[in-house]
Amino acid sequence: MANKFKVIFQPAGRRGEVEEGKTILEAAQMLGVDLEALCGNKKVCGKCKVRIEEGYFEKDNLESGMKHITPLAPTEDELKHIKPEDGPGIRLACACEIHGDLKIFVPERSRAGKQVVRKAAKELSIALDPAVKKYTLKFTPPTLHDMTTGDYERVIKALEEQYGLKGLQFDYMTLKRLQPALREGGWMATFTVWMDKEIIKVEPGSVDVCYGLAVDIGTTTCVGYLCDLSTGKVINTESMMNPQVPYGEDVMSRITYAMTNPEGLETMQKAIIAGLNEIIEKVVAEIQNEKCPKPGCTIDDLTIVFNTAMHHIFLGFDPEYIGKSPFIPAVQQSLNIKARDLGIKINPAAYIHVLPIEAGFVGADNVGVLIAQEQYYQDDMVLVIDVGTNGELLLGNKNRVCSTSCATGPAFEGAQIKFGMRAAPGAIEKVKIDPETKEPQYKVIGKADWHTHIDGKINAKGICGSGIIDVIAEMYKAGIIDKTGKFVMNLGTNRVRQDIDGKPEYVLAWAEETSINTDITVTQADVRALQLAKGALYTGAKLMMKKMGVTNLDRVELAGAFGSHIDREASLALGMFPDVPIEKVVVVGNAAGDGARMALLNKNKRTEAEERARWVEFVEIATDPSFEKEFMQAMHIPHMKDKFPNLKKNLEEQGAPIASSIKG
Amino acid sequence: MANKFKVIFQPAGRRGEVEEGKTILEAAQMLGVDLEALCGNKKVCGKCKVRIEEGYFEKDNLESGMKHITPLAPTEDELKHIKPEDGPGIRLACACEIHGDLKIFVPERSRAGKQVVRKAAKELSIALDPAVKKYTLKFTPPTLHDMTTGDYERVIKALEEQYGLKGLQFDYMTLKRLQPALREGGWMATFTVWMDKEIIKVEPGSVDVCYGLAVDIGTTTCVGYLCDLSTGKVINTESMMNPQVPYGEDVMSRITYAMTNPEGLETMQKAIIAGLNEIIEKVVAEIQNEKCPKPGCTIDDLTIVFNTAMHHIFLGFDPEYIGKSPFIPAVQQSLNIKARDLGIKINPAAYIHVLPIEAGFVGADNVGVLIAQEQYYQDDMVLVIDVGTNGELLLGNKNRVCSTSCATGPAFEGAQIKFGMRAAPGAIEKVKIDPETKEPQYKVIGKADWHTHIDGKINAKGICGSGIIDVIAEMYKAGIIDKTGKFVMNLGTNRVRQDIDGKPEYVLAWAEETSINTDITVTQADVRALQLAKGALYTGAKLMMKKMGVTNLDRVELAGAFGSHIDREASLALGMFPDVPIEKVVVVGNAAGDGARMALLNKNKRTEAEERARWVEFVEIATDPSFEKEFMQAMHIPHMKDKFPNLKKNLEEQGAPIASSIKG
Repeated sequence: MANKFKVIFQPAGRRGEVEEGKTILEAAQMLGVDLEALCGNKKVCGKCKVRIEEGYFEKDNLESGMKHITPLAPTEDELKHIKPEDGPGIRLACACEIHGDLKIFVPERSRAGKQVVRKAAKELSIALDPAVKKYTLKFTPPTLHDMTTGDYERVIKALEEQYGLKGLQFDYMTLKRLQPALREGGWMATFTVWMDKEIIKVEPGSVDVCYGLAVDIGTTTCVGYLCDLSTGKVINTESMMNPQVPYGEDVMSRITYAMTNPEGLETMQKAIIAGLNEIIEKVVAEIQNEKCPKPGCTIDDLTIVFNTAMHHIFLGFDPEYIGKSPFIPAVQQSLNIKARDLGIKINPAAYIHVLPIEAGFVGADNVGVLIAQEQYYQDDMVLVIDVGTNGELLLGNKNRVCSTSCATGPAFEGAQIKFGMRAAPGAIEKVKIDPETKEPQYKVIGKADWHTHIDGKINAKGICGSGIIDVIAEMYKAGIIDKTGKFVMNLGTNRVRQDIDGKPEYVLAWAEETSINTDITVTQADVRALQLAKGALYTGAKLMMKKMGVTNLDRVELAGAFGSHIDREASLALGMFPDVPIEKVVVVGNAAGDGARMALLNKNKRTEAEERARWVEFVEIATDPSFEKEFMQAMHIPHMKDKFPNLKKNLEEQGAPIASSIKG
Repeated sequence: MANKFKVIFQPAGRRGEVEEGKTILEAAQMLGVDLEALCGNKKVCGKCKVRIEEGYFEKDNLESGMKHITPLAPTEDELKHIKPEDGPGIRLACACEIHGDLKIFVPERSRAGKQVVRKAAKELSIALDPAVKKYTLKFTPPTLHDMTTGDYERVIKALEEQYGLKGLQFDYMTLKRLQPALREGGWMATFTVWMDKEIIKVEPGSVDVCYGLAVDIGTTTCVGYLCDLSTGKVINTESMMNPQVPYGEDVMSRITYAMTNPEGLETMQKAIIAGLNEIIEKVVAEIQNEKCPKPGCTIDDLTIVFNTAMHHIFLGFDPEYIGKSPFIPAVQQSLNIKARDLGIKINPAAYIHVLPIEAGFVGADNVGVLIAQEQYYQDDMVLVIDVGTNGELLLGNKNRVCSTSCATGPAFEGAQIKFGMRAAPGAIEKVKIDPETKEPQYKVIGKADWHTHIDGKINAKGICGSGIIDVIAEMYKAGIIDKTGKFVMNLGTNRVRQDIDGKPEYVLAWAEETSINTDITVTQADVRALQLAKGALYTGAKLMMKKMGVTNLDRVELAGAFGSHIDREASLALGMFPDVPIEKVVVVGNAAGDGARMALLNKNKRTEAEERARWVEFVEIATDPSFEKEFMQAMHIPHMKDKFPNLKKNLEEQGAPIASSIKG
């Protein structure tokens, strides 16, 4: 029997044992890892590039008597596709054989399915008043009589006279383009002005289109919304895994990475900036094709939200001081940083507007949620839960709003779950389990209908975040697990079984239904991971309510990575948050991203963010003496399975109400 | 007899025919070119690096039958010293043989004599109120109670409370250093603040020293004055040839170079920025050794003046539009540009303050002169002549000041003069000629006494700018040239002779007195170059007076490259400016540089510069119908040789009065 080696794929987190001599692509397919294989293993398309992150490859070569490092040196087929700019460790997955333990990173470009954007942008109703606007001017060509006036002064004077813009300044890089642009445009030119203060672009002639990008950098996923600043519409959305995942799957492990590696901070900063530039490249390519074929056409404004650790690492601030007591952030207020100073490939004269953060643990993403959900204008007592790798909570109304953060881990995003995967084609996203037979039905992203095993192959690959919550809630309702999360055995079904280590698991899909030729299961460890995550959220909410003296919630708003796909009933059934009638649970989508978009589309939202970030009160819950006890209890699944036996179906038929219909 | 090849050395402009097989160093020594040879030709010091700019090196190699390029490939000795960062074409002059015509550039570093700073800084009486100031703060170390305040906010609050600085912002790059600096300094740190607006540096602990650099970029020479911003004193001065000289010796030829070469502007911009960085490196090395050994110690403010073409090229603005009608500059007002955006190696968060320009032909250097000489506060009608490669004139008093520019060429700076050289050791700087015998006496920079040929060898190398004016004025007084500048022959002296082409010349030093083993002569072409230069100045002044209705000058102030070394009598004798009693001629040194220093030491001078640059009236003289006639007349040397037969000696004994003694 052939040797087997341990192979881990990042950022998906899939791992398994693979026979020696298999290619990386074969291993990826076996383990259900999302990896492009356009040419079907013919080694000609070069689409399946992966990076070897770590490996224990030393192996005696008996013939030569010399040790050699495996995987073997790149083959000629590989060398045809690998370029110096790919960086070190890059291999073609279809050609590189496995001869030792490997940790492999699959770059975004090499992933097959375009992620189904779970952070999709919802329609916002906001007055359009962006920070960046365009003004077109027509001049009389100067003569010898005008030689004592510079072009700079000519333009500033005209912008004041014709548009009332006073005290404008030119960005230095933009100023270099002024004289050629005026002359190329026959003395007509368009000036892009930031915050009525600074000219950040000059284009010959009359130009209407103006684009901005709202960015939400999560610990695990990043998304960019390209907006047309003249209409406010989102015209393109791109998302990707956070390329920092290889350096740590959660916030604390990334802070540790920065503290323990001399180049750690720089490495992670470079990775996320390169990632953002990849998103930018994609969205810009599209607008350049469609609306403005000129290469100068680019993004002129960018707003960005993230948690405090992502904020610090993105900006190159050492995260050490937010990682240890007394947890002091470098800065709280919003920042406007020249794109060129950060190496972000939009208009180099444009500003990156970094939304303010609240406190060491509550970041700009939470401020985004705050200005999107506007609790501070409401009478209702509302709990906003923003679920990502970190859970962040806002509780309050117009009188007072408190915030806190709880470490949920990435389980809600499908990470650290055995068959967890991104919300991409092939992911199981909804599950029902028959309480009698324990047989499941499920829905796969990319297919319209519900599926049972009788329907045969549907090419399921794994389970995404909303699928995990669904399946575990259904397992509980069907009595497959008890309220402590423990598997109930001997239910008379082959769906519940023991794995090779004797640990119980539930088979959600048989191998023949999948594209990975393996049973897709939910393990005891998966259930535990979800319980920890939901217990953290529940405890956070409970303790905040206690501190604020709030006993009843008027509404719960679910925001975050799940977007509009989270199942409200399942989340309530699992006890992710304190009890509230289900019709008062509202799914609001990616509110952090909405906040970033609002700040992009209306500059007054930037002022509002600055003021409200200082107004909101940060509550520390981890230090609360009752935290541990509350958390232990919150791990349990509440006794509420009989509460809404028919509600789920009805709601599904209705579709989830959107936030605005309640907020009205 | 060996082949001879044409060799030209830049930026000195020295040229000659050199025998094949000689080294570049031998050629340099033969032609009197300033070139370091520290190890004495042993090929070990690597100090004599030169760059081959152009060459016609192809030569049949008869043995191999192949063409090869000479100079031969670098020898092993050379390769030991040549580094990739030296750039292309770099050779060791002591090792590289000449086998074809060559154009060679001698980098500043490879020049032997440190230039005697003719643009030396005079004492300024100005209230100290620099744009950049330091503030030290001591904090109570934050505890868990302070975790909702960022370090940014902590610092801003303290600077407002303790120093009354409101609305301060942090430079982004500086902000990166904030948290480590606070902690390294045990919660004491020093903040460098620009214009009471922005924090541009954070240093741990208490730091007093703060440096600024005032820079004057001339067409031919550049100088930087390092100032201690806490005392106002100049603590170091560095100057160099403008490294753009190889691309054109005057303003128009550089504009042409930019217009006719696709990369021309970029090449010249890079050259001058690299040159400025070389000046900075030298002055900073010195302060780092002496006063602040920390590597973070650097320059925190920089003011800069230059003519309009140098301004545009330095800033990367295409000079095309100031080079052709209607001569529109990109910008007139002052600019504050981040050092990092220009690649200038001072504190990257510091601002480069570019003084405003007046008009297409009258630059920031003239504004520097204006704010240094302050005609606008005076009752006297003053003509200020700033002599460099371009002559710039200011005429007026408190009621009105006009400015203009005249193309003098670089003759006043010793360039385009056969034996012209920089004001470095070995340069003849003062001359007297006996009217009877026509025998000269001269002074050489670096030697205290006057020299005659009887004294033997004194290692003279050439003639600097002030020496040229002196010798030609003396030649006129001694009757060696007539008022048209033509040589008078048959004077019964071997000092006046014909060169091999039959053209007359005056021998100022015999070969045996020199270090270049060649007679140092003043040629008919040299006299013509000086006549053109002085004629341009005289005509400019005359036409300005006509336009302003001014008939009498109360004072003439001589500023510019000559510094305090210009001979007032000689300049008056030659007719460089309209007639005025010699005691009303004042030498004011490098007033443009003084203006840059004033703007460095007192920020109100920046406002004054901005206002006065708009107030001063630009007068175009080249288009005046009488220009040509006036110019033809102004070429002549005026009949005033009997006016002050004894005055010169007296004045020399007194020393030239400095500006302040009259201005008082």
